[in-house]
Amino acid sequence: MDIQELLSKLAIETESKIVLLVLDGLGGIPIGPQYKTELEMAKHPNMDKLAKEGALGLADPVARGITPGSGPGHLALFGYDPVKYLIGRGVLEALGIDFPLKPGDIAIRINFCTVDDKGIITDRRAGRISTEVNAKLCEKLKANIKITGAQYFLEPVKEHRSALVFRAPGLGDQINDTDPQIIGKPPLEMLAQDKPSEKTKKLAEEFVAQAKKVLKDEKPANMLLLRGFSSFERYPSFSEVYKLNACAIAHYPMYKGLARLVGMEVLEVGPDLEDLFKELKDNWDKYNFFFVHIKQTDSAGEDGDWARKIEAIDKVDKQIPKIIKLKPETLVITGDHSTPSKLKAHSWHPVPVLIWGENVRPDLAKEFGERACLTGGLGRFEMKYLMSLAMAYALKLEKFGA
Amino acid sequence: MDIQELLSKLAIETESKIVLLVLDGLGGIPIGPQYKTELEMAKHPNMDKLAKEGALGLADPVARGITPGSGPGHLALFGYDPVKYLIGRGVLEALGIDFPLKPGDIAIRINFCTVDDKGIITDRRAGRISTEVNAKLCEKLKANIKITGAQYFLEPVKEHRSALVFRAPGLGDQINDTDPQIIGKPPLEMLAQDKPSEKTKKLAEEFVAQAKKVLKDEKPANMLLLRGFSSFERYPSFSEVYKLNACAIAHYPMYKGLARLVGMEVLEVGPDLEDLFKELKDNWDKYNFFFVHIKQTDSAGEDGDWARKIEAIDKVDKQIPKIIKLKPETLVITGDHSTPSKLKAHSWHPVPVLIWGENVRPDLAKEFGERACLTGGLGRFEMKYLMSLAMAYALKLEKFGA
Repeated sequence: MDIQELLSKLAIETESKIVLLVLDGLGGIPIGPQYKTELEMAKHPNMDKLAKEGALGLADPVARGITPGSGPGHLALFGYDPVKYLIGRGVLEALGIDFPLKPGDIAIRINFCTVDDKGIITDRRAGRISTEVNAKLCEKLKANIKITGAQYFLEPVKEHRSALVFRAPGLGDQINDTDPQIIGKPPLEMLAQDKPSEKTKKLAEEFVAQAKKVLKDEKPANMLLLRGFSSFERYPSFSEVYKLNACAIAHYPMYKGLARLVGMEVLEVGPDLEDLFKELKDNWDKYNFFFVHIKQTDSAGEDGDWARKIEAIDKVDKQIPKIIKLKPETLVITGDHSTPSKLKAHSWHPVPVLIWGENVRPDLAKEFGERACLTGGLGRFEMKYLMSLAMAYALKLEKFGA
Repeated sequence: MDIQELLSKLAIETESKIVLLVLDGLGGIPIGPQYKTELEMAKHPNMDKLAKEGALGLADPVARGITPGSGPGHLALFGYDPVKYLIGRGVLEALGIDFPLKPGDIAIRINFCTVDDKGIITDRRAGRISTEVNAKLCEKLKANIKITGAQYFLEPVKEHRSALVFRAPGLGDQINDTDPQIIGKPPLEMLAQDKPSEKTKKLAEEFVAQAKKVLKDEKPANMLLLRGFSSFERYPSFSEVYKLNACAIAHYPMYKGLARLVGMEVLEVGPDLEDLFKELKDNWDKYNFFFVHIKQTDSAGEDGDWARKIEAIDKVDKQIPKIIKLKPETLVITGDHSTPSKLKAHSWHPVPVLIWGENVRPDLAKEFGERACLTGGLGRFEMKYLMSLAMAYALKLEKFGA
């Protein structure tokens, strides 16, 4: 069953408000003498109170054992089947810098690289040049490359990575990467699988030919590789599917991009944690769905910094009363995936979920934590059902069948 | 996977007996100082004994967050995927009065309404006329309307609602409602989407034209609106799918209709709760599957009467020894959905399930209740798998694969 299709038939517009608070990479695995996860170690009296009154569960973003990237992780949170709605690497790269993609745009990830006199790749990442050097190279390329038949956009991302976008009618994305994934070889030829992709291929080949000349004397970034050709398709929006007037309150471009992808309004927000919650309060009357994204938990996990991840959770907990004061009908606290400090990476472990609100059936959990979630009333579920639950608790769904 | 398709391959005919005892709207959410659900508050020593010996779980009739109507709720109990087997509004209306639909029949819900001199709707429900007035109007219409090319049946349902059925070969149901859902407009024109529906449309237009004349001087019900054109299809029957010889013991027409839809024999039963269990005993030798339906739990929930719902559960508990005495191989006690008194309506909360019998693996639950079910061995599952479990515990399924 396509749960989203079902929801689109049952959703009704109401004034009730849903807050989806995402602590990126929330889930963990235990380390240390106490043998507790970061969430279990953190002091979060406010979340614990919500856990006592609300319902807990554990959710798999994609499926058991599958470690999701940020794209699939968030799509699942937003109720989009992450296996059906695959985001291409190029599109994700463009979303990651909050580039305003339009339907039909072809987004490509660019890796600056180093080649020798014969055009053989000697470093696939050009020594991981700094983002500043990357930005200067992009400016130089844009000043010198003229493409006819399409608009193009080139934006630096990070280190040796940038994003290239072609905009013209009828472009395809069925083109292989030019990165051979190994040094000692030249970049691969592009092969197009269909007519629309032929058109894109010509644009990309022209771009690379001109870039090669512009970069000729640069060191070490004297060439570029193209990866992840992908066409940007408009997704069914939150207002179409859920009849929600949704906004996103996030610091990082990737998450703003993902929110924009599903039609959320992305709010301007100050740099501090407190600013996220100030923005929530200031916009409370304008929307009925609020996606609030916290990055620090994931960053700490990725760095393998157990203590910092605990601290990040503690800090968020102190902000919870500000949400409660606004009286949302439904508050969801969860993550997009687990990022155990022990693994220094995203993982497949299911994500703790807390749903709080008026009509929740309480369960056996007395605090918020991975093991407490095992006794939760939401049980174990696929994350793509989270929106269904959030909508239900906010009384935004009609009965199915008479 | 289509579990029912799989079961149809594995089912074997045996003498073992299954009782499916459905307490309509069984699940709840806590209210009051004790903060317990109706099932948790009720005194049900017999169910608690079965819970200790048996296995508990929680089931979602359709999917997480989805609130089912009685149709989908019961189809799921009977093992029919409620999203695949959608019951049209017209068919459900006819089933609701236990009208003996035949395959190919087109069932339509009729709403008596009020129109002014110009045919503009001034009341979509004709002031919710009484069921008695409705019945008289139906008699008058039947006495005066002659339709050629098809048999028609018209039966009062409740207040302003009645059921119209056309019976003829080759009728379609792809026709829009004539109810504009708003007053101040005339009834909508009917549009047919295909040839068979064209045929139905002509019959329906002829019926409405004649009805208009017959009702001309009635007040306030001087016109009618048609909704939910739906074709009745024979469902795969219990005997075909499960090789079960099944009967239904129920007081309310809707549930008899749903049971008939899946090929159960519907037994005549006296008006009291005890009569249901007397009927069970009296027919014990004739069937090997017994669907017993209790309505009071749901009615009390819908009325928001917490105490009456508790009492209804208590009363059913006192009947349990009568079932045990018959020695069924498998006894299932559950609901078709939750109806928390707090919400005065069906809800999405998962439904408590108790399976008791010889071959049950006991679990951690010591009593029957929503929170106890969280520690149950059946875990959390989609209700459409209930029949699979019931069949398994009664040893009515062969091994899958060698």
